[in-house]
Amino acid sequence: MSRMWSFAKGHGTKNDFVLLTDPDDTLAPTDDQVRFLCDRRAGIGGDGMLRAVRARHIDTWTGDPDLWFMDYRNADGSLAEMCGNGLRVFVRYLVEEGLASGEEITVGTRAGLRIGTLLPDGRVRVTMGRAQIGVDPVTVHVGEQTWPAIAVNVGNPHAVSLLPAHDRLEDLDLCVQPTWEPADAFPAGVNLEFVRVLGPDHLAMRVHERGVGETLSCGTGIVASAAALAFVQGRANGEFTVDVRGGTTTVELADNQAWLTGPAEIVARGEVRLP
Amino acid sequence: MSRMWSFAKGHGTKNDFVLLTDPDDTLAPTDDQVRFLCDRRAGIGGDGMLRAVRARHIDTWTGDPDLWFMDYRNADGSLAEMCGNGLRVFVRYLVEEGLASGEEITVGTRAGLRIGTLLPDGRVRVTMGRAQIGVDPVTVHVGEQTWPAIAVNVGNPHAVSLLPAHDRLEDLDLCVQPTWEPADAFPAGVNLEFVRVLGPDHLAMRVHERGVGETLSCGTGIVASAAALAFVQGRANGEFTVDVRGGTTTVELADNQAWLTGPAEIVARGEVRLP
Repeated sequence: MSRMWSFAKGHGTKNDFVLLTDPDDTLAPTDDQVRFLCDRRAGIGGDGMLRAVRARHIDTWTGDPDLWFMDYRNADGSLAEMCGNGLRVFVRYLVEEGLASGEEITVGTRAGLRIGTLLPDGRVRVTMGRAQIGVDPVTVHVGEQTWPAIAVNVGNPHAVSLLPAHDRLEDLDLCVQPTWEPADAFPAGVNLEFVRVLGPDHLAMRVHERGVGETLSCGTGIVASAAALAFVQGRANGEFTVDVRGGTTTVELADNQAWLTGPAEIVARGEVRLP
Repeated sequence: MSRMWSFAKGHGTKNDFVLLTDPDDTLAPTDDQVRFLCDRRAGIGGDGMLRAVRARHIDTWTGDPDLWFMDYRNADGSLAEMCGNGLRVFVRYLVEEGLASGEEITVGTRAGLRIGTLLPDGRVRVTMGRAQIGVDPVTVHVGEQTWPAIAVNVGNPHAVSLLPAHDRLEDLDLCVQPTWEPADAFPAGVNLEFVRVLGPDHLAMRVHERGVGETLSCGTGIVASAAALAFVQGRANGEFTVDVRGGTTTVELADNQAWLTGPAEIVARGEVRLP
């Protein structure tokens, strides 16, 4: 007899997720089950799975045991620390499911506590922690093209290249894995952002995610790109509009902290039959 | 106020579909709505949409007005005549939703009447009409490689290449559009099948679908491949096992008619919020 699980599907700037409510850790999806849920043809389909589980069931969690914990899993079943687009969708989901209420929702994640705010315009604003600029110079190659890049750590590693005016973002061939120098700058790989500055507070970005390839959006990459632009502008604070292929977002930088604001939509709810 | 539609998601050998029940043609999805439903990131996701509508609402239908009609739409919203994998999934859906019952389900399609049979082993067998072998020789090119091909019409055009033993199916680069000669053999394009004969009644196939690229399965392509093998074997009838990337199917050929048998699964049901 096959099992039925309740699920939802949602996305933030087209970074999409299968969402589950599992307060008591009874579903506890295996890697295979995550892969099935995220399978775009044989299952539901998503870039990852977001499971709402009470924090007490997370071994490594030492904070408030009653918080909702965002158990984020990549489509291949592996654990992931943080996903800015996923966090917005997760906050929207908690509220739509009646699991949380109020303007500010506190969520446990593998990167620590995060706070989501539902804005009156329907967008969600989430805390993203600190975006730390690296000190060592990096060079990035895409095919025949080469640019300097700024290393930014947002819990995960990024290298942001600000493209000169004559290089068009839409001409980049990100089907092939870009390379970087020095090769040992990112021993565990790196997410690569390519940015065109459209104005002092406005940029457009494409992103090549580590282990995935080009994606339509990457929350930490968006924050890293804004932080890199602020850095070359010689400022630490500011508010930036960041256009990605999947939509438009806003990044605020202040007091060594970053916030990411953008759309977060729950598209569907239903029951899925596990094989 | 956004609208909610009930939907299901299903697949046959990983050819996947969003399914709707719309007896009185009240949903009548626009092209944009079909594109949204089939959008794998912003919507539900599928190779196409299958809508169950009473045949009386189809302008071109002259048969029994009370039949369930399979309104098949491609992911881009355009109309499609027939889809063998979709037909199996559609028959399974009618039965699971309680819209039809019995062992044999008759369905109206843009290619005419089709009959689906639910087998005791859980698979679905559907009538596929006639697979007609073309008389003119065709040549197909994939990169540096060239093979003769057999033209087969299964309501839509196919060219089937039977690969010699030293050409491995898994080595074909179907990311690039194959070409054919004479160029005017298929003025509206053609679906290209590449077949390795594994035994007198067993073949493995990869397929490059017209306007789509390589897919994990193609129902009419499976039938065309079996018909091409039967043709070179000098027989008109037979039963063939056809392995595709998305699973295993069976084709029966008899009395100038074809039947396709394979898995058909409804994976999920739910409500989708239209934008």
